[in-house]
Order: sequence, then C-alpha cells, then structure tokens
Amino acid sequence: MAQATIGNSEFDRDTTVTRRAPGTGSAAESGAPSAAVTATFDADLSARWSILKALNGGYLLAVLGRALGDTLPHPDPFSITAHYLTASQPGPAVIRTETVRAGRTLSTGQASLVQFDDDGAEVERIRVLATYGHLDALPNDVRTAATPPAMPPYEHCLGADDAPDGEVPLNDSSEIVDRFDMRLDPATAGWAIGQPSGVGDMRAWFGLADGRDPDPLSLLLAVDALPPTAFDLGLSGWVPTVELTAHVRRRPAPGRLRVAITTRNLAGGFLEEDVQVWDSADQLVAQARQLARVKLG
Amino acid sequence: MAQATIGNSEFDRDTTVTRRAPGTGSAAESGAPSAAVTATFDADLSARWSILKALNGGYLLAVLGRALGDTLPHPDPFSITAHYLTASQPGPAVIRTETVRAGRTLSTGQASLVQFDDDGAEVERIRVLATYGHLDALPNDVRTAATPPAMPPYEHCLGADDAPDGEVPLNDSSEIVDRFDMRLDPATAGWAIGQPSGVGDMRAWFGLADGRDPDPLSLLLAVDALPPTAFDLGLSGWVPTVELTAHVRRRPAPGRLRVAITTRNLAGGFLEEDVQVWDSADQLVAQARQLARVKLG
Repeated sequence: MAQATIGNSEFDRDTTVTRRAPGTGSAAESGAPSAAVTATFDADLSARWSILKALNGGYLLAVLGRALGDTLPHPDPFSITAHYLTASQPGPAVIRTETVRAGRTLSTGQASLVQFDDDGAEVERIRVLATYGHLDALPNDVRTAATPPAMPPYEHCLGADDAPDGEVPLNDSSEIVDRFDMRLDPATAGWAIGQPSGVGDMRAWFGLADGRDPDPLSLLLAVDALPPTAFDLGLSGWVPTVELTAHVRRRPAPGRLRVAITTRNLAGGFLEEDVQVWDSADQLVAQARQLARVKLG
Repeated sequence: MAQATIGNSEFDRDTTVTRRAPGTGSAAESGAPSAAVTATFDADLSARWSILKALNGGYLLAVLGRALGDTLPHPDPFSITAHYLTASQPGPAVIRTETVRAGRTLSTGQASLVQFDDDGAEVERIRVLATYGHLDALPNDVRTAATPPAMPPYEHCLGADDAPDGEVPLNDSSEIVDRFDMRLDPATAGWAIGQPSGVGDMRAWFGLADGRDPDPLSLLLAVDALPPTAFDLGLSGWVPTVELTAHVRRRPAPGRLRVAITTRNLAGGFLEEDVQVWDSADQLVAQARQLARVKLG
C-alpha cells in the first residue's frame, strides 16, 4: 500500500466538512441563533475513530478545527479550546462557525457541533473557541528549555499487537486502534498487564496507520490519542474530557511524533492531562492540557 | 484598617456585574445576535486594575467569571478560557452570557465582554467559554504528585517597595501594584536590576492588598497577576495574552497564595506561561496556561 499523503488519507477523508452555500441550512431554519452564524458545515462522523463506545475527542476536535480553518482568514489553530458537552455519535453532524474577530496576524472564531436525536431535536455536542494564525509566517526563533521525552526507540516500544489477548482496552473492539501507528513506552504500559507505575505518565510514538505525515490538524488528534494517564495511576474506568485546550506551536516535520502526557494532580474526581507533542526534528510542535473527570469502573 | 472580607473588598466592588432585567438591553436592541443571549450585565471596569496602559487580564477574567457564575446553575469556574481580542478600557462594559448546557454536575456557558467606541459602535474585547461546577460538592480525594514551589518565606521575598526607583515595571504608574500584596521570589526578580536568570520562571507570594482572602473568583486574578516570565528570560516589552485557560481545582484556604509560573518554550514570537497556584494549606488550587505574544520593546 502506498503511503497516504496529507489531503489524501483516511484522516483527511473522515474529517471532511462540507460548507453549505450561504443562506441554506441557516440557523433560522434550524431553530438556532441566527445573527452570529457565519458558516454552516455538514460532516459525517466516522465510527472508525471510536474508542470503546465513544468517538475520540481528538478526532472530533480535528473535525471542528477544520471547519474553523475554512471559516477564518488564517489556516492554523494557534490555540483551540473544546468543551465536550454530550457524547457525539457516529453519523451526520452539523457544525456552525462564527468569526469573532479577524485581525491581521490572528483571528478568533467559535464553532459548535450539533447532532439530532431520534425526534429530530438538536443536541449540541461540542463548543469550541479558537484563535488561528499562520504558522509559516512566524519568525524562526526558538528558545526552548523543554526537551524531548526520554523514551526508547519505536522498535522497543509496545504496539497493540504486543498486548496479551483481551487485556488491554487499546486492543479491544475500539476501531481507532486500526487508525493509529502507536507504540507505548514500556515504562508507561505496565497497566496493560496489571502493573501500573503509579506515576501518572503516558508516552508513545504516534503516527497515522496509513503513513500520512502530521500537520497542524492532525496534531489536534495526537493530543488526545493516548490511553488515559489514569491507567498509569492504577485507575480503571472512563475518563471523559471536560475541556481540552491545544496550542499548536510549529508545523510538524514529516515522520512519527512523540507524545508525552503527565498527570500530577487528581483531586475531587478530576484530573489534568498535560501533553507535549514532539516531531521527528525534535521540535516541540504542540502543547495541550485537558481537564477530565475520573469515573471509576 | 480592618481586613476586607470576601464580598466586601475592593476586588468584589470592582468586579461587580449588574444583571439587566430580562428584555432590556437585549441583543436585538444593540444589534448583536439575539437568540443565544440569556443574560446581559453591566460592568464598570476600574482603572485601579491597570498595568501600564492596559487593564489586567486576570481582573477582566474575574469580571467575566462573575457574570457566568450569576448565569449558570453552578457557582465555580472549573475550567475557563478567555480569548483577548482587543484592549479593554476602563469604564462601562456590557457582558452577554449564554447557557450552553446545564447539567447536573457541570454546566457550560459562554460570555462576551463588549465596549463602545466614540461613535457608539460595539467592539468585542474578550470572548470566554467555561464549564462551572460546585467545588464544595466534590469528594475530598486528593492524589497529587505536584509539590508546592520551593521559595523563601514571604518576609524574604521582594515587594514593589524593594525595587530601585524607576527600574521596575511593577513600580511605575501601574495602579494595580496598589491592589496586590505581592512579593517575588528573589531568584526570579533579578530582571528588576538587569540580571534576569534566563530560566523563564516567576514565583511570588500573592494576596490582595486589603487582606481579602482568596476564593475561586480571585484565583482567576491570581493566575495572571505576576510580571511576565519573559522578563526572567531577559526580554523586555509587552507580552499580551492571546488566550488563557484556568482550572480551579479546590476552594482555597484563607491566607496568602503562592503562584509559580514557568515558560519553557518561546517559538515564533509566542510563548506559553504555565501557572500553578497553591494555598496556605499546601493545596494546588488552580492550574492555568496562557499563550502570549512576545512584542519586544
């Protein structure tokens, strides 16, 4: 199979958003607020990006990020925040976007993803607020004290195929496993055999299974692609994201990413996941943090 | 002077928002989107919270956070994100809020702060998206690997009065200096005498000058109250916030806070500031991150 390319890959196909012609599908027709709507998009959320019974939050963020990129005068999400309201379902979805401010260097937009229940009633799934810019227009100065995560080479890390049968959530019916070329640092994979480190870390090599190289949009997927750090804390169960904010700092170089996540503070049934994404050129390309609820299984 | 109390302090007075009766000041009257507006508030932004020529971003976030707390069924900002669009000015402002989703445990809302230019045209200053909950309803479990910042006791830290005349931005005409009881860790105050550490850290004891104890709302002020970490990197000039997200994790105990900020990655003219806020009981009460532009002076 030939390596997929940016623009022609399963990630690109499954995040497709189709802009409606102005005046069609407007909010007035759907019962939603009208004056603020500047564009309406149709999407078809693919079950291929499901983890257990839910659609992956990073996949959904990429769909919304793409609609915002098509709305705003700047292409790249510099800072994007999503609040996950209700569980998205595979199938049709409508995304409404609004240009909040269009500036010279940066523009800010808002997006809302909605689906319709069996009675045709609209249910909002996700609300997003983001500021976009042009990564390629930035000066080339980098002055960082951050260092790439210390982890073994890809060949010495663990893929879904390495897991004992039926032991690993990653290796169950979740279709998303087949979308990813992901290998966990063995130091953060002990939970899969009942030996979590207790530290709250998760590190992995991350790529798309069809070989598509990373771009700013797929970084939005990468920041929410790994197993929950709660597993490394020895917790099991569901850890739904309340809010996730991602900063895309550089355009990633081709090749696999390294994703490192840390959780330092579990309190009151919530925890944060702090994410760094590094590219093959040792550039810190994205930073993200999410607040998640710990729902013990 | 008696110590000010929560609800009766200059912070409380200057963040006052007054809800308009339903049907007055609606969006239809002001030309803004209508269906989504669920409440409208008037505020009077006080120049007393200005830093150089701008109003402090944390003060503004607290004003918006208060309006959202009055709108949503839950009182406390669990996660709040602000995108700063244009520079707010002291004086009248209007805040419009929308309830995006009201759940049992969490509710999500959106807010917009606008002001009016000389021609009466509306200019949006800040757009906010947030999820609120009830801190006091959370279980008491805490499992944290985070540790309070290592810094000298308050008495050995440096206040504005300790700065050489005219050398410190903190000590200039900025009125906000008089609102704070803030003392910097000397290790992160070298920039004030031309000797920045180059690390990108900033640490301080933080309280309100009138002695008001911290609460979830004042934590929104605390996360953006310290001098820019860019100063510790040896940079000078303006570092305007593009986006700031704060997670309030616990209700703070009475007494001074410790605020620790780190910047690890300056790239392409942007940097992140990562903030931890600790209370007098050694609880991690807030985490925040902002993306800021570096505009060199």
